[in-house]
Amino acid sequence: MFEDQTGAVFDGVKRVFVGRPLHSDRMEGTLLPKRVALAVFCSDPISSVAYATEQILLVLAAGGLVALATAPWVALAVILLLVTVVASYRQTCYAYPNGGGAYVVSRENLGESASLAAAAALLVDYVMTVAVSVTSGVVAVTSAIPALSPHAVIIAVGLILVLTVANLRGTRESGRVFAVPTYAFVGLTLLMFLWAGVEAVTGGVPEAVTAANPLPDPGELSSLALLVLVVRAFASGCTALTGVEAISNGVPSFERPKARNAATTLAMMGGIAVVLFGGITVLAVALHAQALPDGNPSVISQIAAAVFGGSSVVFYLFQAATAAILILAANTAFNGFPGLASILARDSYLPRQLHNRGDRLVFSNGVVLLAGAAAALIIGFDANIDRLIQLYIVGVFTSFTLSQFGMVKHWQTLLRQHRDPAVAQTEVAGIGGGSRRSMRRSQAINAIGAVFTAVVLVVVFATKVTHGAWIAVAAMIVLFIAMRSINRYYTRVTIEVAADDEELQTLPSRVHALVLVSRLHRPAMQALALARGMRPDVISAVTLAVDADETRLLRQEWESRSIPVQLTMLEAPYRDPIRPLISYVKDLRRANPRTVIMVFIPEYVVTHWWQQLLHNQSALRFKARLLFTPGVVVVSVPYHLGVAEDSWLGRRHREPESDPL
Amino acid sequence: MFEDQTGAVFDGVKRVFVGRPLHSDRMEGTLLPKRVALAVFCSDPISSVAYATEQILLVLAAGGLVALATAPWVALAVILLLVTVVASYRQTCYAYPNGGGAYVVSRENLGESASLAAAAALLVDYVMTVAVSVTSGVVAVTSAIPALSPHAVIIAVGLILVLTVANLRGTRESGRVFAVPTYAFVGLTLLMFLWAGVEAVTGGVPEAVTAANPLPDPGELSSLALLVLVVRAFASGCTALTGVEAISNGVPSFERPKARNAATTLAMMGGIAVVLFGGITVLAVALHAQALPDGNPSVISQIAAAVFGGSSVVFYLFQAATAAILILAANTAFNGFPGLASILARDSYLPRQLHNRGDRLVFSNGVVLLAGAAAALIIGFDANIDRLIQLYIVGVFTSFTLSQFGMVKHWQTLLRQHRDPAVAQTEVAGIGGGSRRSMRRSQAINAIGAVFTAVVLVVVFATKVTHGAWIAVAAMIVLFIAMRSINRYYTRVTIEVAADDEELQTLPSRVHALVLVSRLHRPAMQALALARGMRPDVISAVTLAVDADETRLLRQEWESRSIPVQLTMLEAPYRDPIRPLISYVKDLRRANPRTVIMVFIPEYVVTHWWQQLLHNQSALRFKARLLFTPGVVVVSVPYHLGVAEDSWLGRRHREPESDPL
Repeated sequence: MFEDQTGAVFDGVKRVFVGRPLHSDRMEGTLLPKRVALAVFCSDPISSVAYATEQILLVLAAGGLVALATAPWVALAVILLLVTVVASYRQTCYAYPNGGGAYVVSRENLGESASLAAAAALLVDYVMTVAVSVTSGVVAVTSAIPALSPHAVIIAVGLILVLTVANLRGTRESGRVFAVPTYAFVGLTLLMFLWAGVEAVTGGVPEAVTAANPLPDPGELSSLALLVLVVRAFASGCTALTGVEAISNGVPSFERPKARNAATTLAMMGGIAVVLFGGITVLAVALHAQALPDGNPSVISQIAAAVFGGSSVVFYLFQAATAAILILAANTAFNGFPGLASILARDSYLPRQLHNRGDRLVFSNGVVLLAGAAAALIIGFDANIDRLIQLYIVGVFTSFTLSQFGMVKHWQTLLRQHRDPAVAQTEVAGIGGGSRRSMRRSQAINAIGAVFTAVVLVVVFATKVTHGAWIAVAAMIVLFIAMRSINRYYTRVTIEVAADDEELQTLPSRVHALVLVSRLHRPAMQALALARGMRPDVISAVTLAVDADETRLLRQEWESRSIPVQLTMLEAPYRDPIRPLISYVKDLRRANPRTVIMVFIPEYVVTHWWQQLLHNQSALRFKARLLFTPGVVVVSVPYHLGVAEDSWLGRRHREPESDPL
Repeated sequence: MFEDQTGAVFDGVKRVFVGRPLHSDRMEGTLLPKRVALAVFCSDPISSVAYATEQILLVLAAGGLVALATAPWVALAVILLLVTVVASYRQTCYAYPNGGGAYVVSRENLGESASLAAAAALLVDYVMTVAVSVTSGVVAVTSAIPALSPHAVIIAVGLILVLTVANLRGTRESGRVFAVPTYAFVGLTLLMFLWAGVEAVTGGVPEAVTAANPLPDPGELSSLALLVLVVRAFASGCTALTGVEAISNGVPSFERPKARNAATTLAMMGGIAVVLFGGITVLAVALHAQALPDGNPSVISQIAAAVFGGSSVVFYLFQAATAAILILAANTAFNGFPGLASILARDSYLPRQLHNRGDRLVFSNGVVLLAGAAAALIIGFDANIDRLIQLYIVGVFTSFTLSQFGMVKHWQTLLRQHRDPAVAQTEVAGIGGGSRRSMRRSQAINAIGAVFTAVVLVVVFATKVTHGAWIAVAAMIVLFIAMRSINRYYTRVTIEVAADDEELQTLPSRVHALVLVSRLHRPAMQALALARGMRPDVISAVTLAVDADETRLLRQEWESRSIPVQLTMLEAPYRDPIRPLISYVKDLRRANPRTVIMVFIPEYVVTHWWQQLLHNQSALRFKARLLFTPGVVVVSVPYHLGVAEDSWLGRRHREPESDPL
């Protein structure tokens, strides 16, 4: 059984990297406690502090000192937005304990089109999260070790491979692996703030390495130009908000009580992100760190080098932690994307295969698809973080906006139901919880979130669409159309294949068994015996006359052995046996349209793969072509060479040689 | 039918390059008249004059002037050998009018081992002929246009590709395409001799461009050292003899009377080769042309440049003709290799596929195999003619020797039969023809040939084995062992699958139909209906419980519709449906070893290839795995999506909508 052999080798390799299969019962075992969930779901928004400040400074630098002075205010605006969005999404966690991603919320409250738009936005954004975070993680490495810069693409793709394998092993384990670096980054950043504070008090912090770089002199800056710069800087700073979605989508992965734990984790994440982002921005301004166009060394690494000393062990530790958390941010998407794709597949918007859980209870196909798309982006953009980041947040804010508006509608519906006394006590308490007053409060929070994010979406789209965001927008549109078409296809198929009661009783009116014979050997006899044993309405044997001598021999033997089945010779003047058979079968069908034609194909099955080379592969070719011929059923009758005792016909190999009969 | 679509595209491309399929009746039409056969079969020995002289000079040069002086005598020895071998092979043409290659002659007269040794030698040699001739043809080009030298490998592989396509189109057409350059080369070479003669008489021929090059001074050359050099030079010169085999192998391709036409063509070829080889050697010595270690420019091109003038049109024409005939020499092998491989396949020494004639009545698989092997050699040896040529003639002389000894035995057998008056008149006259006396004469000629070639084989082996010929020898040994093993395998299979009369009457004792069901849709109903219509001894439906909800739904519907077949649920706790099914089937088999299990698999067949992506491919995976499970017959019941009126079940799509029933 060579198929079993190669299968075993593949299985062995897979087991080493992915682990042994997990029983479906172990689904519950993969639930996450808050401290692990924080690492799994929140590394994305937390890690984005590693580049959000830099993106603000990069835009403002064009406006010279005057513009740069607005940096703290821009950062404050981003923080306010972050707080609003976090508050808004906490409502979602409570309202949708089974997972309230933008797709689910939009579908329930805004209809199919909005939900597909949200889904498309999220899918694109998950891919961008992986591409941007991994690339940024590689920048953290190359900031510390510049010699690695030329190999950025290879390193990034390698990291995606590691993430893929880790995630194919399953959520629980990846959570454990990834908890340490997240907390290391948070801890080291806080240590950096403390260290800087102590230095400031004791004798001052040295300035950043780029502090003395000349700033561009934009001349007299008009108020309008300054405003445009500030708005663009704000749009760039909004990268700090990516990934908030992941928690509300991942509520079912939390330990019980799921909703409350998720909401608490979201708040913790918000607090951490605000502190880190604020602190880094303050330090960047204080140390006069400048963002460099190629992002190398990064602003955050300049700060760390200034505070810790550029060749200290702590500096290298800090860089390592930065790289690590950025790679974990990519991991957030490895949790989110396959889950969303699975829901979309369940709802018939994506191919069914994305709904299957693999050996290790993860949606393996989604994991592989995400990794492939992200790797392609990194290769396509040559691991250039500045160009990649332009594609990033259009999707985020599309889904934010749709999700928040959906929540507003959600509370509206609940409030209307609440007015109806019949459902007031039972349903509402179960779903959203709380009184009319708390519902109104939630609705208000979501409304503020919705308006804020809608405005930001317009700003982001306007400032970034010509800088590459159009690619993300185009991808979203393509996905949107594809999902609609796939849904229409599945619906059509479902209607087409639905069986009615009458059909359940229908039997085929007439069966014609056709046995392919090339020589009178046991494989052919087996197929012939099986066909005869089935007692079809008509039975005939067919041979393809490719070689005149062999055909003559077959006919002679057939007649001399008086086999009770008629043998039909099909001429194959061009020596291709497939076409004559197909047209013969089609002719039969045309003559008797209600007859099912069962083609019995004797087939050698060999023990070793190389033996396959020694047999014509015509059975395979016949099978492939007949599958596409309507009204034909193919019966593959295998003859296992070398294990003749397993054949049901004869089995003389088992009979003792001394048997007198 | 997307399979038909892609098939059509492939067919279209194939037709453009290979031509439309030829009817088997046109076999006779591909027979060759002598003038075409000379071009097809004899370009190899004729073209080898382009490098044979050079190989002699290259070896002798090491011995300085003294050694070089022996060149004409070495060439004379080669000519004598050539005449002997041609004379010897002419006997073969008469004795074996159906093709008397070394393989056939050895098998009939010397037994299996000798014939396989001859076959292995010939196969290796055909590959070498292609590699050496094409490489040498490229040297002819680069001698004229030195700028092309760096691209030698690419050019050589491209030429092999052209030869492959030409030969896939068929013998007759390739003969026509190739006749012109062969005659052009012969004509231009004779013109060169004439031209040189005229120049010699009127004022003398200019010396070759390398005439003034310093010769190595070997100091005092011992007689033994000189002898060794001369013997080595002779061994190298024997490259002139390659390809004589092709005619005796190709007798059936000649027009009638086949044997006589073949023998005549062989004699013509011998005459031409002797004249050209002798003339070129005389000119090389007269013009003091020296062989260069890298073969560029070649000796023959130096002569042509000296005689015609190095920038004359005639010179370039001559180089073109040289290149062309060398490429045609490769074509000889494209006629010989596939034919021999086909005979070996027919005799069960090589895979059956090599015995099949393709669309255009040529043994397409053999053509492709030869081209691949030769291209690999050229790439592996970087198109270095000096290294390639070392592998060349061990195989030739192995087959020569075996063939001649076989012929000696052949005549011996005939003579013994002739002594028996009963067969004397009938058989002998038909096969070998002629009287006892003419048989004795033929035997004597073959005996001389056998001894000569045996001696040369020893010489060639001794002088070349360490220079690379070991690779050819190793390849021959590997082929020899492989052919023996393949034959043993086929014999074993033939015995195993031979059906006796009792078995021809055996019907399967018990059939268990197993219908795979995932949902209660029309494809499943179709499979179920077919299985029930077959009235098997046992019938059961099986579903794989991968998704708990779907399984529950199926069971409910099954019961509510009261389908008269029992539904078995197989647990798939690891979500892989294949393993549970396989072990279930194996358990069934173990419980009832004589029962045939027919697994009915409903299968979606889609109209466009991309639709395939939207369906789980589990049917394919089931089929692949079940094929390797003994005692199981797979029945593939296709459901053609989008062409529902072609389904034999229901066909409600055809019914008019106004039908009151």
